[in-house]
Order: sequence, then C-alpha cells, then structure tokens
Amino acid sequence: MEASSRATLEHVARRAQVSRQTVSNVLNAPHLVRPDTTERVRAAIEELGYRPSTAARQLRTGRSHVLGLRIEPVRDGINGAVLDRFLHALTERAQSHGYRVMLFTAPDDEREIQQYDELLETADLDAFVLTSTHHGDRRTQWLGERDVPFVTFGRPWDAVQGPAVDDHPWVDVDGAAGTRAAVEHLQQLGHHRIALIGWPDGSDVGADRRRGWHDALRRAGWAEDGLAPLEAAVPDGVASGEHAARLLLEQAEPTAFVCASDSLALGALAAVRGLAAPPAVVGFDDTPVATALGLTSVAQPLAEAADRALGLLLRRLDGGAGPVPDPHVLLTPHLVVRASSTPPPA
Amino acid sequence: MEASSRATLEHVARRAQVSRQTVSNVLNAPHLVRPDTTERVRAAIEELGYRPSTAARQLRTGRSHVLGLRIEPVRDGINGAVLDRFLHALTERAQSHGYRVMLFTAPDDEREIQQYDELLETADLDAFVLTSTHHGDRRTQWLGERDVPFVTFGRPWDAVQGPAVDDHPWVDVDGAAGTRAAVEHLQQLGHHRIALIGWPDGSDVGADRRRGWHDALRRAGWAEDGLAPLEAAVPDGVASGEHAARLLLEQAEPTAFVCASDSLALGALAAVRGLAAPPAVVGFDDTPVATALGLTSVAQPLAEAADRALGLLLRRLDGGAGPVPDPHVLLTPHLVVRASSTPPPA
Repeated sequence: MEASSRATLEHVARRAQVSRQTVSNVLNAPHLVRPDTTERVRAAIEELGYRPSTAARQLRTGRSHVLGLRIEPVRDGINGAVLDRFLHALTERAQSHGYRVMLFTAPDDEREIQQYDELLETADLDAFVLTSTHHGDRRTQWLGERDVPFVTFGRPWDAVQGPAVDDHPWVDVDGAAGTRAAVEHLQQLGHHRIALIGWPDGSDVGADRRRGWHDALRRAGWAEDGLAPLEAAVPDGVASGEHAARLLLEQAEPTAFVCASDSLALGALAAVRGLAAPPAVVGFDDTPVATALGLTSVAQPLAEAADRALGLLLRRLDGGAGPVPDPHVLLTPHLVVRASSTPPPA
Repeated sequence: MEASSRATLEHVARRAQVSRQTVSNVLNAPHLVRPDTTERVRAAIEELGYRPSTAARQLRTGRSHVLGLRIEPVRDGINGAVLDRFLHALTERAQSHGYRVMLFTAPDDEREIQQYDELLETADLDAFVLTSTHHGDRRTQWLGERDVPFVTFGRPWDAVQGPAVDDHPWVDVDGAAGTRAAVEHLQQLGHHRIALIGWPDGSDVGADRRRGWHDALRRAGWAEDGLAPLEAAVPDGVASGEHAARLLLEQAEPTAFVCASDSLALGALAAVRGLAAPPAVVGFDDTPVATALGLTSVAQPLAEAADRALGLLLRRLDGGAGPVPDPHVLLTPHLVVRASSTPPPA
C-alpha cells in the first residue's frame, strides 16, 4: 500500500542523525532544540517529503482529532436542510484544521448522552458539537461535569431566560435580528400592517423570532393590543401556514406576512396566490424552496457559524496565542430579497 | 467520569475466576469453552452489567468499526438533499450495527483518493462508502488494488456501458424504471404526447432516466423520429426547465412532462401555470420541494439503499452465515403521485 512507503518520523530521525524525540521537539517545541540541529531536521523533513500524520500527532498529544456530531433522524421537512448545511460547513472547516467529524444519531437527550459515553469510551473523541439546544438541556451539564470539550450551535436557553445554570461556549444566530430586518424591509416598501405567522409557545427559537417582529412594530408605534390580532401561532408546516394566513387575511387584513420558517411562508404564498393584491411574504432560513420559488427569506450564516464554533473548540483543544475569543458568539442573519416581498397596493 | 467506572473484561474475568482470554472466548468463540465455565462467565457479565466495548472489540478484531463517506461541498440546490438523506439513513443503520460514519470532503476524485490514503493511515478506517460514481471513476480501482473494502451507491458506469473494467459491490436505483413508471402513470391517465426534459449527453444517470421514458413510449408505438421533437436536454435548474418546457409547448404540444429532476420539474410547473389546460408534470427524486408544491415525483428508496450497501460491507467485514448476497443491487424507485399529474383535457 502506498501509504506505508511514506516517510515517517523514524526516517527523518535517521536521515538527520538525531533521536525521534528531537524530531518531535523540532515540530512541537522548537525552542528546546539547538538552531543547527533544527536546521538539519528541517532539511531532512524537506528531502523526505515528511508530513506529520494525525496518528503520530495523536501519539504525541493523546488526541484523536475527531469531533462528534449528532445528526437528526431522517425527515423530509423543508426546514431540515439547515442543520445539514451546518454539518457540511463544519466538515469542510474541521478537515482544513486536521479534524474529522464522526456522526451519530439519538432520538432524545437521554440517549444522546449514552452515545457521548460510548463514543468517549470507544472512539476517543476529542470534543462534541451540539445542535438544537433547548430549555432544560441536560446534555451540556453532563459534558461539563466530565470536563469534555464541547460547543453548542444554539444558546443555552435556560441561561438566556432565567438564572444562568451553565456557561459554556456557544455560537448562535440572532433570530430576533432576522425578523426585525424582515419587518424593516417591508416597512421601507411602505407596509404597515405586517402580520406574523409564528410557532406556539414553548419554542425558544420561535420566541426569539417573534421578538424581532414585535419590537420592530412597537418601535413603529403599534400598541400591544393592536399587535395581537396581527399574530398567529401555529405548528410548523405548509398547511398550517396556509390556514393561518387565510384567517389573518379575513380578520386583520395585513398587507404582508413575516413567517418563522419557509414552510409557513410557503403556506402563506399559497393563501395569497390569485388575490387581486397579494400580500408580501417573507420566510426564514432561506431553504432551497425559497430559492426555487422566489421567496424573500432570512438567511442564517451557517458557514460562519461552523467556523466560529470550530474556532472556539480549537482554542480549547489546541490553545493558541492572542486574546481569548469571546466564548459566546451571536451572529446576525441577513435578508435575501426576492420576488415575494412586493410593495403594498398604491 | 462514569465511563471509567464501567465493568471491563478484567472485572468479569476476576468475578468469574477465569482468564481474560476465557472471557473473550465466551464472547467470540463459545465452542472453545466448557459449558460450566461459560455459565459462570455469563453470570458475571450479567451481574456486573458488562457491555463489550467497541475498543475492546477493536483490540480483538483489529478493526475500528468506522466507515468513511465523502460529503459533497455545501450547495443550495434542490436536488442536493438526496445524498443527505442517504447519509442520514446510512448513519442510523451503521450505528445499529456498531459502526460509525466519519465524514470527509474532497473537490475531485484525485483529492478524494488522497483522503482515502490519509484516512487509512491515520484513522484506521475499515471501509468506504462511495457515492456519485461516474465514467472513468479512478477511486474504485485505487481501493480495489489495495484490497480496501468498499461499496458504491451508484453503478460502475464503465462496466454498464462497455467492457467490465471493475466488478465491486454496489447498490443503485433503477432510474429507467422510475421514468418508465412516470410515463405509464401518465398513459393510464390518458396522456399520449408525453415530453421529456432531461439532461445533456455525458450524464450516466441522465441517460438512465431518459431510457425509461424512451422505452415506454416506444412500447406504446412511437417511432424514433416521432420521439425526437418531444425531447429536450438541458442543464439542471429551474430556469432551464422552464425555458425547455416553453419551447416544447410551442413546438410539440405535449400534454405532460416527465423531468429528470425536481428542479427541472419546478421550471416546467412555472411554464404551465396559468395555461387554460396546464399539462401534467412529474419530477424525479421526491425532494422537499415536491412535497411542498404537490409535485408528482419519482422517489428513490434511500433508506433501503443505505441498508443494502451496509449489508454488503458487513458481509465483507464480518462474514456471516447463509448464502452470499448478490453484490450488485438495483433497487426499483416508486412514484409518489400528487396534484401535478392531472389527466389531459377531455
């Protein structure tokens, strides 16, 4: 096998007439090595085309350079693609830093913790990347107690809304800023009666996205009881979005809809199709469906989220120079404007 | 850490007053052990709640129980979800058999092979699952020469269309059967002039999907030169699908479109919207967009494909009783009928 004909640390040591430890020092602790020796080792590395392998690095560092990530069960929803895109970006960026992503699945927190346990015991993972944080999340506590490095894509919602029960590195996207940008875009087009189709109570992400709509309209002078009729809270889905949009159209005559997801927005689009003056519609997550249908939508910066999450982990795992980065990163999403956000009728 | 307080092989051996090797034999080669000893070891395993770890198994078997899979670069296409769904299903099923999936990315075959090399050297992978097979695929040859176990999701297209240059385990979905089913469904609704919006020459998958349409219409009595005007071959995409559908409507007046992808079908839907008698449209891959828009589409059995691919790998890795399974598995897709496949005008 070609791989075995590659130059090893041993080959470099022999060529440079030094010990393996000295080669290792040149690579990892050059201040311990005399300059002329360093020079000789570097020359040998270059002549032999030596490339320190992950295995060798693992022997030196006691680490596997493997990160664990749970993927969600197979589903066909429109919004499911978001975590897949995060996974793709994470895999690419981890690889460029010499790390691999190992996948596992678990139907709930309890069994996700069992998987951590098993993966730590058997596969020697260095760290975990957690997604879908939520109220009463026991996973972060479990990892924290065992001093296992991890980062979450998603805020610790208990800490956000109550006394801080844990304080760990996280990266998240500011959902309120996303819906606020959607409302402001619609206001600039001339809309005033901007309805929200959101999710029912109990979703932290949903409450965050609702807040941006709420605050932007309050700032525009709406009273609290004026907003209530402009709001629907329904389970995610195209059919529920369509139903909610029809009810809102009857009861509150909005000229625009801001939706907590592209699924809901797709339903709203169906409800307004064929109307003489179809209201504008804005979705959330900028899924392929939004691209395909010309739906204006709020895009999460998923590649940047993966990058920042990885940066926080690497700082913890590998150390590094310079100031310690802020362990809490809230990224601002941006609006992708397409045909569905039309101005109101003149 | 809880993990370290778990029962180990050592604990079991001490409790049962036997050697570690005897415990290992009870687990892996029970015919070598006397029944009363087996009984004692089993009792100790049960009392201690011992669970053989993957690490221990790896020490015994010299294997990591990790499978490598390349994921495609991040893209926002409508059809990209297909490989993601295969990945999800593969991860779930591999885990249920004690295997993990490790991800990597590579922009082309050459660098994918470099990744194999590195992963074999550093991460001790047991096997690879390859996707996106194509003409002149050098990856399978590289792995075959090194006797690395692998399976492909996708046929070896050189072998299909020319002399067999390689013969390895593969699982694929019969694209021709999918478009044939689409045509037959439309014929049963009363359609005769059924157009194809396919991909240009050079795509093996595209040629396969074209064949089903072609053969079904030939069987219905169409002459070769009658079919030519009913066919468009365009790059994948919503805009190109819409353009192709408009041209076909002008030139050949089809009452139905069979499309090589949901992206093309989405374009065709846009082209027929608003017509007095809008032609029927059928897509391929049953993506979330198809669900969302009520598009009839051909669904690939991705969970079954992952299952069968894993089955072929496990047979190679772990052996097993019973007849050797056929190493070449061609699965039949099924049509998901929705609102877009309407009957022709009376």
